[in-house]
Amino acid sequence: MHSTNSAYKRFDKINGNFKGKDIVSLDQFSQKDIKILFDEVPKMREIALNARPSKIIEGKIVVLLFYEPSSRTFGSFSTAVKQIGGQTVEILNPQDFSSIVKGETFEDTIRVFEAYSDAIILRHPQVGSASKAAQIAKLVPVINAGDGVGEHPTQTLLDLYTIYEKFGRLDNLTVLFAGDMLNGRTVHSLIKGLALYPKNTLYLLSLPSLKLSRKEYSNFLNLGIKLVELESVNDIPKNADVWYWTRIQKERFKSIKDYEKTSNKFVVNQEFLDTYASKNTILMHPLPRVGEITPKVDDDPRAVYLKSQIRNGTYVRMALLTKVLE
Amino acid sequence: MHSTNSAYKRFDKINGNFKGKDIVSLDQFSQKDIKILFDEVPKMREIALNARPSKIIEGKIVVLLFYEPSSRTFGSFSTAVKQIGGQTVEILNPQDFSSIVKGETFEDTIRVFEAYSDAIILRHPQVGSASKAAQIAKLVPVINAGDGVGEHPTQTLLDLYTIYEKFGRLDNLTVLFAGDMLNGRTVHSLIKGLALYPKNTLYLLSLPSLKLSRKEYSNFLNLGIKLVELESVNDIPKNADVWYWTRIQKERFKSIKDYEKTSNKFVVNQEFLDTYASKNTILMHPLPRVGEITPKVDDDPRAVYLKSQIRNGTYVRMALLTKVLE
Amino acid sequence: MHSTNSAYKRFDKINGNFKGKDIVSLDQFSQKDIKILFDEVPKMREIALNARPSKIIEGKIVVLLFYEPSSRTFGSFSTAVKQIGGQTVEILNPQDFSSIVKGETFEDTIRVFEAYSDAIILRHPQVGSASKAAQIAKLVPVINAGDGVGEHPTQTLLDLYTIYEKFGRLDNLTVLFAGDMLNGRTVHSLIKGLALYPKNTLYLLSLPSLKLSRKEYSNFLNLGIKLVELESVNDIPKNADVWYWTRIQKERFKSIKDYEKTSNKFVVNQEFLDTYASKNTILMHPLPRVGEITPKVDDDPRAVYLKSQIRNGTYVRMALLTKVLE
Repeated sequence: MHSTNSAYKRFDKINGNFKGKDIVSLDQFSQKDIKILFDEVPKMREIALNARPSKIIEGKIVVLLFYEPSSRTFGSFSTAVKQIGGQTVEILNPQDFSSIVKGETFEDTIRVFEAYSDAIILRHPQVGSASKAAQIAKLVPVINAGDGVGEHPTQTLLDLYTIYEKFGRLDNLTVLFAGDMLNGRTVHSLIKGLALYPKNTLYLLSLPSLKLSRKEYSNFLNLGIKLVELESVNDIPKNADVWYWTRIQKERFKSIKDYEKTSNKFVVNQEFLDTYASKNTILMHPLPRVGEITPKVDDDPRAVYLKSQIRNGTYVRMALLTKVLE
Repeated sequence: MHSTNSAYKRFDKINGNFKGKDIVSLDQFSQKDIKILFDEVPKMREIALNARPSKIIEGKIVVLLFYEPSSRTFGSFSTAVKQIGGQTVEILNPQDFSSIVKGETFEDTIRVFEAYSDAIILRHPQVGSASKAAQIAKLVPVINAGDGVGEHPTQTLLDLYTIYEKFGRLDNLTVLFAGDMLNGRTVHSLIKGLALYPKNTLYLLSLPSLKLSRKEYSNFLNLGIKLVELESVNDIPKNADVWYWTRIQKERFKSIKDYEKTSNKFVVNQEFLDTYASKNTILMHPLPRVGEITPKVDDDPRAVYLKSQIRNGTYVRMALLTKVLE
Repeated sequence: MHSTNSAYKRFDKINGNFKGKDIVSLDQFSQKDIKILFDEVPKMREIALNARPSKIIEGKIVVLLFYEPSSRTFGSFSTAVKQIGGQTVEILNPQDFSSIVKGETFEDTIRVFEAYSDAIILRHPQVGSASKAAQIAKLVPVINAGDGVGEHPTQTLLDLYTIYEKFGRLDNLTVLFAGDMLNGRTVHSLIKGLALYPKNTLYLLSLPSLKLSRKEYSNFLNLGIKLVELESVNDIPKNADVWYWTRIQKERFKSIKDYEKTSNKFVVNQEFLDTYASKNTILMHPLPRVGEITPKVDDDPRAVYLKSQIRNGTYVRMALLTKVLE
């Protein structure tokens, strides 16, 4: 409900200026933009831990418009808005609401909700929904909280921040990805994110059937990133800075038997971690996990997926909302 | 959770005093009451656009008790409460909640929720629910957010305000209604609202099968309002101040074919608007729309349904909550 | 999101110190703890009635994690948090959320939500869930809002407070329980609560088929409480201070006929109340009710179930949150 209708071009690169911008894709971010955002995060952490209530976006109303449920992303954004002093209007499953059942278009729904808010955080199962919403919304910024197999930029930003927080840099890293390279949205996005920085080497461990598509593989190579595909744990590099483990998605398999054979292939337990990781490796996972990391590993100091990785999600979202709305 | 149990008579006319009153029906409002309310709206607009956070109802808790989903009304009320500094407790589909499944009566549910709040905003599919709730709730006001084919007074108030804002008056107007005159709750309510003011002429354009019932028609005539029924676009008066377009409700038809024949009859596209409307006509629609106004018309300055009409909904609700709760 | 990870032992007795403690079971409370809590309640009542907004837990975020719907408990906690200045993040039916559908464990879900909040209020259909969650959550307290047929400590505390408010004591009371002694969680918990105090006599009126199990009966006797089982209204003691009526649960019966025979057995109507209760008896009910107290009785000054008993629920929860979070 901005008083002025700023007519900035949609999908502009951030280019140092977050204010009022839609946040749809990681492609909008340069190294410099990520630096600006990450410089804000420690202040957000300090607010979350020691300096609430904050008044950074006091009086602002943010609509959470979630066309599919996602407990973590929903909770993280809802908390992030409130921790910097804003309020939420939360609409879950609007497709079940009468107006949409009656045939209302996505366009009309977005235009109605932009009239109620200072920003829309959109979760939607269809690729491209967020960019469509951003084009429709003329008065308020739209933040993509995941559009199907498309993008989920704040997930990638929190992954990058978790690495940055630990190593103080995003270049010159050795990163091992494991699990499903073929279908994993978070993996693809994080590869793109790391490709923004020089001298990173990415190892991709998966069964042959779950390797990157050849098209995706060439696309990434064209970004100048070094990729090494692995099929055996024996090839895991000893000096990896980051392990990024992912879930094998049951719903991709024809039979439970096929799934079980595949999902049991690369399981991180304490012995596995001690054997193949280094002392400084951090073990990340986008969650949910379903067995590919055993719970006993949770207490290992290298395991960050239920610790800083989750918390950083909220801090990064607080920082992004601050930059976009302040 | 008022400290005093004021024993004002239910369904009293507003009579200049909104404080603590149930808002169930437009029948409670005189011309003077509407004037008092509308005088408050520009202040609310100013708060929404430039002066948040507001502390008008700071510390108050408003229960949104929605027995059926309605994304626009829910979002508008939720935003309205928060923009004037209040907080909401939001209960969606309480009929699925265990206590009601276990057999709890509507009476008990209302009495429980009045104990948790300073006001109840009720949406319910059954006619008369709001007035029933208002009779049950002894301590806090109940605001009707739509009771089936009954009333939805804030919808009518926002429609009236949108006309008032544009023309500076609610008398001496020529208004064209189009679409479904037979079943449209918003149409019936707005006709009643306009009948409060002298010298309005209302044209009702519809297929014969969707004309007002003869009973409704006589009732309206008895209110002293001038009604002219039309069946052809050629009879549309050139000087209409307001066009109020409505959706043909698919669920009223026996076959898709019948529906499609009917729904395609009066479609506003740019050519239609330029041919039959005047330069100063405003084009309104209660939403959702499903094709009876083409999206290209949205950018015409006369089209207000996705612009001031939506926003006025929030401002009018803010004004009403302010008057009832302050 | 506490800044320090206090390593207090889980399920400690309160022992005069509520701060940061999980509240899972009434067993954690001594007479002295209950006194400390109840001394806080009148201040909460004053805030609710006359002194909002309060800033007691300003800036704190409380997650309401409800695995099953419960309109009263949800609304009461949501209001309680807001009335003392906190904010909620509300997650309903997380089991339908994608992460859990994808196979996420309860452990991971709890650890994610503790990262988003200062406390978790958990409602779950399975016995033991709350204590499990409390063991998992390392950083924030968990408050049990009902775990199936297990415990619902704030229900018992509000019941005790309602008695305490009226009589100024919790010992030396004559209490009549009626309805379902066999399955009623609230009955069992309140018996345990009253057993903390000396010289209480409890009468249990039910059909033979709905008497306490013999095991439960001996357990209670071992606590030192005096129990008298009744089968006929003629045996109701004339001097009961408290009547605690409960619903016969339809879902426990094999046929509707059996249920109807049973449920119609002990119905409180005005005549019944006037015949068997004294002038100072208070009539309580945990709600929902489905006919075992006729609505006409609601206006009798002795009937507190829709009046102070409901309101005390919110005040007691405000007091508990204050003590745990301040």
